[in-house]
Amino acid sequence: MHCIKLQLHVDGSQSEIYKQLTTIDGLRKWWTNQTTGSTELGEFIDFRFGERYHIQMKVINAEQNNLVQWQCTHADEDWIGTVVTFNLQENDGKTLLKFTHDRWPTHGDFFAHCNLSWAKYLLSLRELIEIGVGKPFIIN
Amino acid sequence: MHCIKLQLHVDGSQSEIYKQLTTIDGLRKWWTNQTTGSTELGEFIDFRFGERYHIQMKVINAEQNNLVQWQCTHADEDWIGTVVTFNLQENDGKTLLKFTHDRWPTHGDFFAHCNLSWAKYLLSLRELIEIGVGKPFIIN
Repeated sequence: MHCIKLQLHVDGSQSEIYKQLTTIDGLRKWWTNQTTGSTELGEFIDFRFGERYHIQMKVINAEQNNLVQWQCTHADEDWIGTVVTFNLQENDGKTLLKFTHDRWPTHGDFFAHCNLSWAKYLLSLRELIEIGVGKPFIIN
Repeated sequence: MHCIKLQLHVDGSQSEIYKQLTTIDGLRKWWTNQTTGSTELGEFIDFRFGERYHIQMKVINAEQNNLVQWQCTHADEDWIGTVVTFNLQENDGKTLLKFTHDRWPTHGDFFAHCNLSWAKYLLSLRELIEIGVGKPFIIN
């Protein structure tokens, strides 16, 4: 099993970031504007990227302002069953966001593509918090 | 041993990208403006990020418009001996840049930080090619 690991500091509070991870409106502002479903524990969130990708995540863990965890229930084959974790902790007046996308069965080109893509969208989340505007995938 | 793997498409030719990887002036425009040394095969390039980081790479491989490879000779301990590879290939009218930073002894927080950081600077390289301006680390 392979794991994407990324981390970055965000100049914002844990609660501000947690909100963008746990509301449909927030997720639309940094990942994809085609986000639907429910962010409640045990429920399912659907993320679409045009016709190309449809990712469905089940919310399997949520600790207020500290942790959000999803398990993938629909997507390209390599993603099914993988687990995405956002961990938030205070560090030196900022929030350290530690991200993992774990249980990958492969470590090839698709892994490399998704690694870059996650980094891009985590930077989008940071811009949303720090300057008020993210760079989500957008289809009008 | 662990390996950072990232890849992205760049709307530019292999030769344009190769130039930004193999000239001091090019490297200054997307990674750090504090870049000095020689990009010739067998020579050493020094990358500085203020007082905090000094990375020295030996150029160990270079195939015109296709591949650039460095081995780290000075940096934080985890980087010493690691190998950075930029592989360029034509794909669907764009250039597919496949990046690896291999032979990491650890897979912890510093790995996660560097993974995000490499992604950020590869996106900077893409912006340099596509819109003419990158986002390197800058100290005036």
